[in-house]
Amino acid sequence: MSLTTDYGYGAGFVGTLHAVAFRIAPSLTVIDLDHGVPPQDVRLGALRLERFMRFAPPAVHVGVVDPGVGGARRPVAIEAGGHCFVGPDNGLLVWAADAAGPGIRAAVLDNEAFWLQDRSKTFDGRDIFVPAAAHLAVGALLTDLGTEIDPATLVRLEHPHVRTGPEGAVEVEVLQVDGFGNVQTSGDVGTVSALGLTAGTGVVIGTSAGGIGATFATTFADVETGEAVLLIDSDGCLALSVNGGRADRLLGDDRRILTIRPA
Amino acid sequence: MSLTTDYGYGAGFVGTLHAVAFRIAPSLTVIDLDHGVPPQDVRLGALRLERFMRFAPPAVHVGVVDPGVGGARRPVAIEAGGHCFVGPDNGLLVWAADAAGPGIRAAVLDNEAFWLQDRSKTFDGRDIFVPAAAHLAVGALLTDLGTEIDPATLVRLEHPHVRTGPEGAVEVEVLQVDGFGNVQTSGDVGTVSALGLTAGTGVVIGTSAGGIGATFATTFADVETGEAVLLIDSDGCLALSVNGGRADRLLGDDRRILTIRPA
Amino acid sequence: MSLTTDYGYGAGFVGTLHAVAFRIAPSLTVIDLDHGVPPQDVRLGALRLERFMRFAPPAVHVGVVDPGVGGARRPVAIEAGGHCFVGPDNGLLVWAADAAGPGIRAAVLDNEAFWLQDRSKTFDGRDIFVPAAAHLAVGALLTDLGTEIDPATLVRLEHPHVRTGPEGAVEVEVLQVDGFGNVQTSGDVGTVSALGLTAGTGVVIGTSAGGIGATFATTFADVETGEAVLLIDSDGCLALSVNGGRADRLLGDDRRILTIRPA
Repeated sequence: MSLTTDYGYGAGFVGTLHAVAFRIAPSLTVIDLDHGVPPQDVRLGALRLERFMRFAPPAVHVGVVDPGVGGARRPVAIEAGGHCFVGPDNGLLVWAADAAGPGIRAAVLDNEAFWLQDRSKTFDGRDIFVPAAAHLAVGALLTDLGTEIDPATLVRLEHPHVRTGPEGAVEVEVLQVDGFGNVQTSGDVGTVSALGLTAGTGVVIGTSAGGIGATFATTFADVETGEAVLLIDSDGCLALSVNGGRADRLLGDDRRILTIRPA
Repeated sequence: MSLTTDYGYGAGFVGTLHAVAFRIAPSLTVIDLDHGVPPQDVRLGALRLERFMRFAPPAVHVGVVDPGVGGARRPVAIEAGGHCFVGPDNGLLVWAADAAGPGIRAAVLDNEAFWLQDRSKTFDGRDIFVPAAAHLAVGALLTDLGTEIDPATLVRLEHPHVRTGPEGAVEVEVLQVDGFGNVQTSGDVGTVSALGLTAGTGVVIGTSAGGIGATFATTFADVETGEAVLLIDSDGCLALSVNGGRADRLLGDDRRILTIRPA
Repeated sequence: MSLTTDYGYGAGFVGTLHAVAFRIAPSLTVIDLDHGVPPQDVRLGALRLERFMRFAPPAVHVGVVDPGVGGARRPVAIEAGGHCFVGPDNGLLVWAADAAGPGIRAAVLDNEAFWLQDRSKTFDGRDIFVPAAAHLAVGALLTDLGTEIDPATLVRLEHPHVRTGPEGAVEVEVLQVDGFGNVQTSGDVGTVSALGLTAGTGVVIGTSAGGIGATFATTFADVETGEAVLLIDSDGCLALSVNGGRADRLLGDDRRILTIRPA
């Protein structure tokens, strides 16, 4: 079983999930894929889960980024390609299910026999999702957990965009900044082709704080220490980095949209 | 075995505990319940451990929030209701032992044969508590670890209070703020009854920064985005939240005491 | 298998390592020794790995603090004393190998059959180191992974220094500050002897912000609450602490070098 949430590491939520899973399935291996999704950022959680599918073994994956907990959104389980996904029906899981393979099926988790007793209204991760996932991991069927639903009814978010801008520029979204200050964007190898970039090409990154000069290259060490480099990162995304430094410090306050054009 | 500490995630303390446990008991499952207890906040650590008992499987639980390490406070192990607790005798463990069940027994960990060699003066988690817990988990008896003591001599802290205030108000303590900004208080369903609150009732939360208007409800989504809601959280505590926002930002600098009264 | 990195806990890197290891070796126990090494601080990562050897069971240890990823530095595996170390050849691993025992051997990880397919240029932890380590853990030989190299060619860093200063003072480096604000220095019991300190001796710690008065003692509780204490910490290092407080707040902006002399 794997866990991907926005619970963070300081409040004991994650440990409670492990305890609940262990009580149902003591011999189950539980992998913490990620508990650092920014609070309530469903789309970024969905992107991370989708990417994990390249590396994840066939398993039950719990995803919880759930601003609508306790409200009308459905708790669901989704099967696809030998994987199973459990969480809220708010777009978090379905990209990962698409990536996992064909044969998608889904159920709403309305069988209360698989819920924790004394369900709270604000912690479905503990009370519904992890119990359901642990039971799935040790042999329960999707349809044991609740009523099967048409996968076409699952909520889907819009993917991040890449847009052609004026004068040969491309507009990308900032997806996330990691602990090293690397700025990951929605661009990818297709963006590199569209811009006609090759190793060593100078580029200008347009931000609300002005233009940033950088060099398109393959890794940090291809530019001098302290210089900016635009590269394809380990997720296959176009990212802005500084060799031995932090690229996020080059951006202004508005960190959502960047434009990229050859220098 | 479970671990609950204030060691945090950045300094390698937690990994060392796992290494020490693994060397003594390689096939033991070790669950990190919580390493995010605020530094040296013994009472909050004790509350979290007590709550984990609702979900924890019968096991050996190590708790370390230990400002008196190396000093006169006793290192102890406590047995109750099929669980065992290992840590400092400063109030951290005993509420969890009470919650675990009847038949409490305790011992001071004075048998140095179960300590790590070359014990330091500042890291009993590594040198005494985890070794003791790992040995318990693989078959040692409480009385192997040291001299049995009268459980009545264990240090006990005062529980957080709820007080009736003037003009129908109730005074509660702020217990903690989670990563989403939810403000958990010492109030509970009894407080709700005392205040005569029902779903939809308006309340005023008095803080040192002034009054905050909120609605008593069952979950975040029961109020509009950006509005404040008072609810019973997943720990059974009365908590102040903002739908899609952070309630902690509504509080002033003094975040210890709040008053609640119907609007 | 153990993991020690500077990846931090917020970006999903660590979870990906676990997923990759699990796919290669599902029954392997993977211990997170430390993911909180400050970004790109190779020397501190090397010190922490070296210290873990006192507690670590014989195993394969992955270390990744790797500012030169994708560049010319070699990916290596090092065997010593029943342990194996996998990571970049930048000084991170070799102190731990020295501590692990005699019989050091090394190989450069140039056998691409043991790499993840579609290797990226910026995440060798995922693409090379963890796959190599997982294969080693389940039976691969060092020489399966690549070409054996002379261990004398491995990159070595300089250890932190302790210098005799003017007027009986000793100059030490600040190594790290933990979550409690304890300031660990490069001094040790030898420094205590050189300074002629015994329990209760007053000392003056010279910083760029001026002198700090402290008492040399064995644990926090040996001084009054709020007072500074100089002690040998659980790593065997001379450290500055404040009983019930944070010693890091006593330092000025320059936190690299301190002088210590008897008061």
